[in-house]
Amino acid sequence: MKIAGKHYRTVWMEDREVKLIDQTLLPFQFEIYTAKNYKEICHAIRTMVVRGAGAIGAAAGYGMALAFLQSDSKEYIEQARKELDATRPTARNLFYATERVFNAGKVSPKKAVEEAIQIAIEDQFAGMSIGIHGNKLIKDGFKIMTHCNAGWLGFVDYGSALSPIYRAHGEGKKIFVYVDETRPRGQGARLTAWELQNEGVPYAIVPDNAGAHLMSKGLVDMVIVGADRIARNGDSANKIGTLEKAIAAKHYGIPFYVAAPFSTFDMNCLSGDNIPIEERDPEEVLWQTGPDKNGGMHTIQVCTPGSKVMNPAFDVTPAELITAIITEKGVIKPTEEAIFAMNL
Amino acid sequence: MKIAGKHYRTVWMEDREVKLIDQTLLPFQFEIYTAKNYKEICHAIRTMVVRGAGAIGAAAGYGMALAFLQSDSKEYIEQARKELDATRPTARNLFYATERVFNAGKVSPKKAVEEAIQIAIEDQFAGMSIGIHGNKLIKDGFKIMTHCNAGWLGFVDYGSALSPIYRAHGEGKKIFVYVDETRPRGQGARLTAWELQNEGVPYAIVPDNAGAHLMSKGLVDMVIVGADRIARNGDSANKIGTLEKAIAAKHYGIPFYVAAPFSTFDMNCLSGDNIPIEERDPEEVLWQTGPDKNGGMHTIQVCTPGSKVMNPAFDVTPAELITAIITEKGVIKPTEEAIFAMNL
Repeated sequence: MKIAGKHYRTVWMEDREVKLIDQTLLPFQFEIYTAKNYKEICHAIRTMVVRGAGAIGAAAGYGMALAFLQSDSKEYIEQARKELDATRPTARNLFYATERVFNAGKVSPKKAVEEAIQIAIEDQFAGMSIGIHGNKLIKDGFKIMTHCNAGWLGFVDYGSALSPIYRAHGEGKKIFVYVDETRPRGQGARLTAWELQNEGVPYAIVPDNAGAHLMSKGLVDMVIVGADRIARNGDSANKIGTLEKAIAAKHYGIPFYVAAPFSTFDMNCLSGDNIPIEERDPEEVLWQTGPDKNGGMHTIQVCTPGSKVMNPAFDVTPAELITAIITEKGVIKPTEEAIFAMNL
Repeated sequence: MKIAGKHYRTVWMEDREVKLIDQTLLPFQFEIYTAKNYKEICHAIRTMVVRGAGAIGAAAGYGMALAFLQSDSKEYIEQARKELDATRPTARNLFYATERVFNAGKVSPKKAVEEAIQIAIEDQFAGMSIGIHGNKLIKDGFKIMTHCNAGWLGFVDYGSALSPIYRAHGEGKKIFVYVDETRPRGQGARLTAWELQNEGVPYAIVPDNAGAHLMSKGLVDMVIVGADRIARNGDSANKIGTLEKAIAAKHYGIPFYVAAPFSTFDMNCLSGDNIPIEERDPEEVLWQTGPDKNGGMHTIQVCTPGSKVMNPAFDVTPAELITAIITEKGVIKPTEEAIFAMNL
C-alpha cells in the first residue's frame, strides 16, 4: 500500500514497540500510534485506532508478543490474553492470533515475537493471493460496490475485498467502485475512499441508502465485501449493512462475493447464529467528528438529543445469499464441504 | 401536532404572509420562516426549510396564492408557477397544488387564497383519516420501522406514515418505533425522532444499515413509509433507502405499507419508470451540520476530501414489494384497479 507514494503497512513492530496507522483520524490526519505494552494495544482495538479483521488480528498478535517481552509471569500473560480477547467480540482473527502467539510464547518470548510477525506476513500474503484470485472475477468495465473498509487498512497490507480491485486496476481494467458511506463510523467514506484515492482507482461515495437504487438501475455489476468471521457453513459476519446489500443483490441477480483469508474462518462456529454481534456505544450514532472548512476539529450532534439508539456493529449474511468466497487458496462455494476442503 | 404542548401546523397563512416551521434547524433550533412572496417559498422548498410531500404541496399552493395577491400580470403568475414547479422534481403534491391554485386564481386572487387554504385543510383531513385506517393494521405490542420523515412535519398536520402510529399510541397500544437515521440529511434522526419525542411515543434511532439485521432477528412487525409520488400501477417513489427496506421486508415476510393521501397519486404516470429522481448536491453527503456540546453550530467534513459523490434523493419501490397503500379512503392494494376505484 502506498500513502502519498511511500510504502506502509497498517501495523508493524519496531524494536519493542508496535506501530499502527491511527484510523480514527483518517482521512483528515495521518498519524502513527505507538503501543508500548498490551494495554495500549487493547485501547487501540477498542477505540478503533486499528480496525478491520486482519489488522485487529495482527495487532492482537503483536500485543500478545509485547506481554511476553515484558513479563514471564504466567498470570500477567494470561491476563493479557484475556484482556486482548475481550476488546471486540466479533472478528475471528483476533482470537486466532492471540492463541497462536500465546502458544508460541510458552517456548520463549522470542518465539512469541516471531509468531506475531509470522501472522502479519501471512496476512499480507493472503491479501495478495485474494487479489490474484478475485481479479479473475472482475471484467473490464465492471462497476463494483463495496461496503465498509476491507482494504489495506483493514489488514496488514493489500486487504481482502479491495485487493482484487487493486489487482484489476493495476492490470489496466477500467473499473469503477461505489463506496458505501458505512454509517455510523463512515469507514467507507473515510477509509475506503481514501485508499482508492491513494491508489488512483475511480470511485464515488454513495449513501448506504442508495445501494438497491443503483442496483435497480443496472449500475452495479458485482458486490465485494470483507468478513469479520465466517462460520463453517459459510454464514459470514461483516459490518452492519452488509446483509441489506446481499439481499438486494440477490433480488437483482447481482453476484455477491465475500473476500476473506483463512484466519477469518471459524471451524468451531457451526452457523451465523453462533457469531456474537457487538453492540457499540450510542454516541457513535448521535455524534459525528470532523474538521470544519478551516481544519478545526469539532464533534457535533446529528440526532435528536435524548434519543435511544440501537447500534449493532455487524450483521450476518447467510451463506445462501453469497455467490462465492474469495480466499487466498482460491474462490470457493460458501458450503461446509468447500470450506473443509480448503482447510485440508 | 404538539410542540412543547402548543398546537402547530407545519405551514400556514397569516395575513399576506406564509409561515413555515424551519426544518433545516430542527431539532436543535425551533424557528418560524416567513415568506412574503413566491420566490421566498421557492427558496424554502429548494433548501428544505420545508420538505415532505404534503408540506411541499401546501407551501407551493400558498406560494401560488401569494403570486396572485401581488400581481395581476399573467406573465408574473405564469413565471411563479414555472419557478415553483421547478423547485423539486419528484413530489407529486407540488404540481397538484400549483395547478389547483393557478386555476382558482383565474377567477380572483381571493379564490386563489381560498384554494390554497383548502389544499392545506384537505391535507390535514387526509392525514387524520390515514391515521384511522392505518391504526387498524397495528396490533398491540407491534414494533414498527419507518424511514425518513412522513409525520406532521412532512405534511400540514398528522402526517402519513406516522399518523397511524400516533393514533395507535393515543389508543393506548404499546408500540415501539425504529427510526431509520435516513442519511444523508438525517430526516429520521432529526425530524421523526423529534416528533415521536414530542408525542411521547417510544422509539430508537437506528443506522440505515441496521434494517435487515433487525428484521432477521424477528424484531420488526411491520414497516410503514410515506411516498412522494405514486404511479397509477402502485409503484411508489419515496426517500432514498426505502427500496432497500422494501426488499428486505419481502425477504423476511414482513408487511410493508406505504401511507399517502390522494394528492400523492399521479394518474398520468404509468409506472415508477416515469418518475423523475432528483439528484441532490454532493455537499449533503460530504458535510454535516450540527451543534457541539456547548451549542455552537459547525459544519464538518465526514468524507474523504476530493471524493466524487452520488446523491439520489429518492428511489422507486415497485408495487409488488408493497403489501398495501394506506390512504384517506381506506387501505388499498397497490394495483391500477384499486387505485382507479379509489379515484372514483
